[in-house]
Amino acid sequence: MTIGIEQVTIIGVGLLGASFGLALKKRGLVKHIVGVGRTQKSLDIALQQNAIDEATLDLQAGVSRADIILIATPVQQVIPVLDASRAAAPSQAIFLDVASTKQAICDHARTHCPVPRRFVGCHPMAGSEKVGPSHGTPDFYAGSVCLVEQDSSLDMQVRETVCELWRAIGMRVVDIDISIHDAMLARTSHAPHILAAAIAQLAADFGVTRDFVGKGFLDVTRIAAACPEIWRDICMANRDALRESLEQMRCQITRIEMILANNDSAGLEAFFEAAVDAQNRITES
Amino acid sequence: MTIGIEQVTIIGVGLLGASFGLALKKRGLVKHIVGVGRTQKSLDIALQQNAIDEATLDLQAGVSRADIILIATPVQQVIPVLDASRAAAPSQAIFLDVASTKQAICDHARTHCPVPRRFVGCHPMAGSEKVGPSHGTPDFYAGSVCLVEQDSSLDMQVRETVCELWRAIGMRVVDIDISIHDAMLARTSHAPHILAAAIAQLAADFGVTRDFVGKGFLDVTRIAAACPEIWRDICMANRDALRESLEQMRCQITRIEMILANNDSAGLEAFFEAAVDAQNRITES
Repeated sequence: MTIGIEQVTIIGVGLLGASFGLALKKRGLVKHIVGVGRTQKSLDIALQQNAIDEATLDLQAGVSRADIILIATPVQQVIPVLDASRAAAPSQAIFLDVASTKQAICDHARTHCPVPRRFVGCHPMAGSEKVGPSHGTPDFYAGSVCLVEQDSSLDMQVRETVCELWRAIGMRVVDIDISIHDAMLARTSHAPHILAAAIAQLAADFGVTRDFVGKGFLDVTRIAAACPEIWRDICMANRDALRESLEQMRCQITRIEMILANNDSAGLEAFFEAAVDAQNRITES
Repeated sequence: MTIGIEQVTIIGVGLLGASFGLALKKRGLVKHIVGVGRTQKSLDIALQQNAIDEATLDLQAGVSRADIILIATPVQQVIPVLDASRAAAPSQAIFLDVASTKQAICDHARTHCPVPRRFVGCHPMAGSEKVGPSHGTPDFYAGSVCLVEQDSSLDMQVRETVCELWRAIGMRVVDIDISIHDAMLARTSHAPHILAAAIAQLAADFGVTRDFVGKGFLDVTRIAAACPEIWRDICMANRDALRESLEQMRCQITRIEMILANNDSAGLEAFFEAAVDAQNRITES
């Protein structure tokens, strides 16, 4: 880091918040970390884990001396937390978040924060089906991509500091145009999550047990074990793009049903070939 | 093994056939392995890998001295290969297969083989998105479940020998009632495969690149890279059960689209909770 950070405040000490604290500490990037939580229990775990140095339930007090403020709350709380903490934080404080949907949050920041803007929308694409600070690890973020918004209203120096911070904890920063972020994530994350959840139910409702599932099934449905509350919030925050993606999926399924009904072997092979091609385009790009 | 096996013939030296040969050899379970193939190229690779000791393109010659005959061809060829090899094999030979769909194959065996039946329908649930003998390994089957048909027309001593063979190469044998096998596999394997293939295309068609996908996406879509020809055959062989599963999936998607349209946050959370419960029922059963 080219900047020395005195204090970071992490609002929301769940898996992502706690891992951020642990990552900063492991690398000696900050002198003091304050955790702000909704419950004393999470804060106590984060303290015990040494993910934070100090804990408070009081948002205003928690951000009052912060250089950098990470908002790691559930997605629906990012906007109110940003507004409340901006009012209480030093004017030079830098804000960033980790929410999986970005349009509403970044639109709000663009219209409500002074320009050049000191809030930078971020989406670190690290995740786990586990939740809570007790599962936090210092290398949770390492090796994954962090999408960072690119917008003319941003303070470019602030943006660069945020990028440096993510890089310092092992992430690869990729610029993202917020106007396509949510539609893209609906297709790469939110719709796949709903389908995985539906597949798990389809199998369980048929009476399938562990003996009858292979590695393929376990891989496809692993994410279905994730926290219902978090995924409810993410999907609700992105419901327009998600509905569009699900409608496209539904049309594809109808098409395959017709291929099967018509005994169209060549059509099915072409569909699977298109999938291999799609996989190659994505993974080799 | 309680029996000494002189000769095993493997018909179809792809990933599964070659791995079977390698598994038997590693454990010293058989004196001589004959590979029967459709192309000299696959046979040469299998020979070079030491998965088989002898190779032939002539099915009748290949099975003429076999004690055990594994049919590891694409699913559509199992029935004709079984009929042709039964006519040429010693009367005491034991037959087994590895096809992912079982109803048509086992029905055919039940009506065409002498009782007590010496063909035992098997479905070793090991797999890979890779294909061909060059990817075969001696531990390909180890640690996975092998579904073995349970039916009153079977020679129970033969069935036990087949089970012992799978166990000897590291599989856990689970009895399966063939009448539910295909409907179950449609839900645990074939429909998930089609959905994974559709998800990969949905994302690629939107222009998604490697930078924008996380581990969840890669896990869900990994199986979409599998061989189109093999999956065309598997899905076509199970198209009735598969259509039923896809229709159920389509109804679930419609339901979620309505939940999102109605902004029904509680409904969506209940859906995700049901998925966690489903995952738990499957993985903890």
